[in-house]
Amino acid sequence: MKNIAIIGFGVVGSGVYETIKTNKEILKRNTGEELRVVKVLDIRDFPDHEEKQIFTKDFNDLLNDESIDIVVETMGGVRFAYDYTKQLLEKGKSVVTSNKELVAKHGEEFFKIAREHNVRYLYEASVGGAIPIIRPIACDVAANDIVEVSGILNGTTNYILTKMFLENDSYDNALKTAQELGYAEKDPTADVDGIDACRKISILMSLVTHRKIDSEKVHTVGIRNLTTEDLTYAAALDCKIKLIGCGFVENGKVSASVEPMLVPNNSPLSSVEDVFNAAIVKGNMAGTLMFYGRGAGMLPTASAVVGDVVDIVRNPGYNSAYEWGESAPENELAYEDIVAKFFVCIKEEQLEKAKKEFGDIEIINGVTGLGFVAPKMSIKELDEKLGAIGGAVSRLRFYR
Amino acid sequence: MKNIAIIGFGVVGSGVYETIKTNKEILKRNTGEELRVVKVLDIRDFPDHEEKQIFTKDFNDLLNDESIDIVVETMGGVRFAYDYTKQLLEKGKSVVTSNKELVAKHGEEFFKIAREHNVRYLYEASVGGAIPIIRPIACDVAANDIVEVSGILNGTTNYILTKMFLENDSYDNALKTAQELGYAEKDPTADVDGIDACRKISILMSLVTHRKIDSEKVHTVGIRNLTTEDLTYAAALDCKIKLIGCGFVENGKVSASVEPMLVPNNSPLSSVEDVFNAAIVKGNMAGTLMFYGRGAGMLPTASAVVGDVVDIVRNPGYNSAYEWGESAPENELAYEDIVAKFFVCIKEEQLEKAKKEFGDIEIINGVTGLGFVAPKMSIKELDEKLGAIGGAVSRLRFYR
Repeated sequence: MKNIAIIGFGVVGSGVYETIKTNKEILKRNTGEELRVVKVLDIRDFPDHEEKQIFTKDFNDLLNDESIDIVVETMGGVRFAYDYTKQLLEKGKSVVTSNKELVAKHGEEFFKIAREHNVRYLYEASVGGAIPIIRPIACDVAANDIVEVSGILNGTTNYILTKMFLENDSYDNALKTAQELGYAEKDPTADVDGIDACRKISILMSLVTHRKIDSEKVHTVGIRNLTTEDLTYAAALDCKIKLIGCGFVENGKVSASVEPMLVPNNSPLSSVEDVFNAAIVKGNMAGTLMFYGRGAGMLPTASAVVGDVVDIVRNPGYNSAYEWGESAPENELAYEDIVAKFFVCIKEEQLEKAKKEFGDIEIINGVTGLGFVAPKMSIKELDEKLGAIGGAVSRLRFYR
Repeated sequence: MKNIAIIGFGVVGSGVYETIKTNKEILKRNTGEELRVVKVLDIRDFPDHEEKQIFTKDFNDLLNDESIDIVVETMGGVRFAYDYTKQLLEKGKSVVTSNKELVAKHGEEFFKIAREHNVRYLYEASVGGAIPIIRPIACDVAANDIVEVSGILNGTTNYILTKMFLENDSYDNALKTAQELGYAEKDPTADVDGIDACRKISILMSLVTHRKIDSEKVHTVGIRNLTTEDLTYAAALDCKIKLIGCGFVENGKVSASVEPMLVPNNSPLSSVEDVFNAAIVKGNMAGTLMFYGRGAGMLPTASAVVGDVVDIVRNPGYNSAYEWGESAPENELAYEDIVAKFFVCIKEEQLEKAKKEFGDIEIINGVTGLGFVAPKMSIKELDEKLGAIGGAVSRLRFYR
């Protein structure tokens, strides 16, 4: 018998409860133990819950219950979750989380405490919902030098972009539909401004490099300013526009960024539509791998959380494969030093100057201006050239 | 220091050697140990190899070397590989294999011996080359009731089908090109007749159900008889034709089969082209997941083999998550009892009879005959109806 506690009985927390209950027999077969949720911490009341006796509002009820080995933290936010996680790990309990903000901000601290107490801090559900991506990087691809991890890491924005691209919908309309369907929050900032994707790519690249990539320093652009004209250009270039969390390691330097990118139609990422997520992992031996599935939702996220619980039941001791340490800014590549190919939109009257700066460019006519593919150069150099022609209407990086 | 031996220094075996050498530092960081290949067994001579002193033709040199904990078996075939694997496990050494035929035929025996000696028998590389699929099923998705595992499990046939579909090439021409490029063997039987895919789906469904699915009893049809006309019908149905290893569990019964299937363009499998492989896993909580990458090749396959080696260095003790036992025919669904939707091709003169048997069908005109989508029914019932109209020219199952 393994006793489990849940902190935060919202969408994900209640999904974890349901998964452990529904798949009781399967979990028993897969772990050799019966898993049982014995405590749930939440500030709200659940008087009608079938097991209302397991609910508590006092964190100490969990912390001091020595029968509990594993605690699932699905409350979100940082302040309380940080304190709780720290205390639980120090008490020798393993913690599983779906809280990307917390992992991105304080992961390195928790790994240290977990190591000291020989317990585990796992976070598969913090990136890509149901999609296995943390454990594949830590285990399956462990024989590789991982040179890239990139992907569509946010379902809300992918839904909006899919609507805009396939149905020629405006950004505002697509967002409204996403909100009506429950895919986007009333305040969609965290999704549409790329903050959610930024935390996820930070976690992935921290794991790959074993050094913290500080999400607050990651260059992040959302999808708010994309126009249907951008999408028309993309189609002409045989591409789609996707919000990409893009991480790579080159010459010992690590890069992480989030921005809408032109994804060529021959990339497996281009056919990832609607609320689905997908992550590309490139290893020096494995080549290109892709992991695809539902990046959010009650049960998909719970699937990943309980998968981590299963891992801990099987292997309760600390595992350094999942950790990272303090950040190492000297190993990070500044956004402006990324060398990339861009599509640039300008006004017609800038054409002659653009030709002078960029040489022999092929022009694509848009409705309100025109565009061209700039040759590969550093973003710094690109922006200097664009400054010299009076600035671009917009510029979009190609996913390589 | 972990000493490793390799049996069979062909494409995969030499890739394993190269991976361990090239990624030495990464492997050290990821396992805490230095991995070293100390013996290679092969009947051939490698007089020019930089470490020619580690080669041997005598199996006992490996078996009796107590410094070797992990042996990689990449020799292929069954006869010798079976004996070697058994003896190694009995001697308390863990074995990692890429040999799908051996795993499919004798896995259950090896798991039993591995359990008795508290060592491991791992086989990630036997399915899907570089693509993580065995460990995801055993670990990442362990909180799920897995209801389906299906996929494009053979790169050679997928390459041929891609050529036929995108370039309107004939089967014979496409096969010839595949042979010229080294994607297909001189004798392509194992690939084009679906034998390779059959072993892989058998392994996957054995793992999912923990009972052996005997590959020799799996209904298997290859791609030899597909015509460009079949592909034209597929396009008209908004589908592609892919060779699918299809496994599912329904009402407690397990089904495994291999056949060319009509894959709707909105399925993520439909955009998997060329030599790439992809496997779909459906769980009752996770929903649809897909794992995509290179299904063959020296280094991609070695990536998976060495990933298993890393797993064993980290967790050397037996792990029941990867095992299956003897087959349980009473839990297997016969092919003819599968309920599915089919596309049926007939000759024009059969149309009236077909309408009588199948009711209100919508006709699609081909070049040499015509076709229609039969309503969902058991394959037995379908074949009875087809018998009553004098047999079909061909029939193709829809991937659901």
